[in-house]
Amino acid sequence: MVPFTHNFADSVSRLGEVALIQQISRWLGPVSPTAPLGIGDDCAVLEPISSGQQILTVDSISYGQHFDASVSPEDAGAKLVKRNLSDIAAMGGTPGPAVLALLCGPDVCTQWLERFFFGIRQCCEYYKISLVGGDVSSLEPGNFSAVLTLTGQALRPKLRSTAKCGDYIYVTGTLGGSILGKHYQFQPRLAEGQWLAQNRDCNAQMDLTDGLVKDLKSLLPPATHAALDLDSLPIAPAAYTLAQTSGHSALEHACCDGEDYELVVTLNMQVNRMAFETQWSAQFPETELQQIGRIRPSSTDGQLIDSVTNTALPWAHGFEHLRSE
Amino acid sequence: MVPFTHNFADSVSRLGEVALIQQISRWLGPVSPTAPLGIGDDCAVLEPISSGQQILTVDSISYGQHFDASVSPEDAGAKLVKRNLSDIAAMGGTPGPAVLALLCGPDVCTQWLERFFFGIRQCCEYYKISLVGGDVSSLEPGNFSAVLTLTGQALRPKLRSTAKCGDYIYVTGTLGGSILGKHYQFQPRLAEGQWLAQNRDCNAQMDLTDGLVKDLKSLLPPATHAALDLDSLPIAPAAYTLAQTSGHSALEHACCDGEDYELVVTLNMQVNRMAFETQWSAQFPETELQQIGRIRPSSTDGQLIDSVTNTALPWAHGFEHLRSE
Repeated sequence: MVPFTHNFADSVSRLGEVALIQQISRWLGPVSPTAPLGIGDDCAVLEPISSGQQILTVDSISYGQHFDASVSPEDAGAKLVKRNLSDIAAMGGTPGPAVLALLCGPDVCTQWLERFFFGIRQCCEYYKISLVGGDVSSLEPGNFSAVLTLTGQALRPKLRSTAKCGDYIYVTGTLGGSILGKHYQFQPRLAEGQWLAQNRDCNAQMDLTDGLVKDLKSLLPPATHAALDLDSLPIAPAAYTLAQTSGHSALEHACCDGEDYELVVTLNMQVNRMAFETQWSAQFPETELQQIGRIRPSSTDGQLIDSVTNTALPWAHGFEHLRSE
Repeated sequence: MVPFTHNFADSVSRLGEVALIQQISRWLGPVSPTAPLGIGDDCAVLEPISSGQQILTVDSISYGQHFDASVSPEDAGAKLVKRNLSDIAAMGGTPGPAVLALLCGPDVCTQWLERFFFGIRQCCEYYKISLVGGDVSSLEPGNFSAVLTLTGQALRPKLRSTAKCGDYIYVTGTLGGSILGKHYQFQPRLAEGQWLAQNRDCNAQMDLTDGLVKDLKSLLPPATHAALDLDSLPIAPAAYTLAQTSGHSALEHACCDGEDYELVVTLNMQVNRMAFETQWSAQFPETELQQIGRIRPSSTDGQLIDSVTNTALPWAHGFEHLRSE
């Protein structure tokens, strides 16, 4: 469904900003508390977090970039929230209140927007997120972007920068081919992220958004490389499906495709891996956790090495915004 | 200066996302701490606030809507920060860390962006704000938006909703004609906002962004109106200048123009006004504070009444986003 309308009566410009904000508050229902803890004042006032440290993340979604007319408004709205949730999961956090900036052309269709907010509402209700404030501003006709800033709290925020040379590298779920559906249907790995973050043997964690080979690099300590066991990579069925027509192998899709929204975690080399894996399976029987390699001292062959052939991975790039080359 | 370039070598798409984020971090210098308290992880980790309550606001700026090619990149960047600061001032708060979402076409000019970030940096340095995280995503060529989410803390956040019938209405500074320069040159009323918020006789406060007559309505308790003494309205010199060519009176500009970024505050009816005004002048000798009316029980003539003629104000609307009628 296209977010825009040629019929003025159906457009947000008929409503105007004040009426639109009231409408949004109604659409959001219980997800939208009243001021000062919600919409309606110059700032939202946040309740103090109950424990741990406060974390903050921001993500956006734009028509024509992150979704198109083939995507339902509900899925687009939910995805905006879930992208942020995946960042919270990556730190081992629990989501808190959020604020939303809406940038829309005057021709955005009110009915489309209502469904977009229904997607946001359902997702916020499920994950117990309050939308406590925001901003509405205009763009040229034919444009729609939404930016969500999500707070959270984490008992012990798990970082990327604390990975160590020698660590085992694990990944949750399966990788690749997310464009065939998972990029809307994914569930952010919140419970998994919290459990991993509280495990003292986990040195570092992050979520996969731009593809394993690109994202892994930001996890590697200086003067190290990732030695990957490509045979053990958990390739998603969708990656095999995609490989039938894409001209790329399923393995390449698993390594390079963006929007997996899985977690990568590194485990201390002294860990009892069997005990760890047993605990994981008891805790998350439905979520695969696979060791895919180790962090090793730097190699002249680059940051990502096939541990069997001891040569550089043939694919260097994942998804990168703004690249047009 | 136009934010876009036809020359690929000068564009952000030549850099790509990863290099651009590194560049932004360099441009921001001391304003950009390293992870986990800054850019580089999935979320930013915030330091606990030292006292009071945490507040949160979000504002955006888009090329073609909030600024055009006549505006310097530095002014555009600084304005994004100052719009948010004005919201913090409205609650009586002190600014804290911020996150920034950048939505830009592949043809955004790197040199323009560097200057935009220089404006952000100078403003953040002045107000001691750290930019602790963000997100970069793509738009169609010719588009540029930036969304800043700013945290803050307030000892006693002053709300809009706590105004009382009988309150005196005061306004800081002068109003109208901001389009002639003040909408970029304004200083957010942070010190004033904090001082007012800690005064127990101040019942409510807010900042003026969409024009006095529109914004005042959101301050009025149910079943009240604002009785305005139009003769006492502090009309800005710029409003008189604008009136010479606009076809509207200076008074109308003072009542309706957006982007004053002044504070409106309501004072308990039992207050010793002379003592209050004397304290104000001692504290802020360079900032006018003018009583412009009172909150009265509801009138059949509407929410905004000329207290001399006892008739409705002839102008009902301030600036409203998305209105195209």
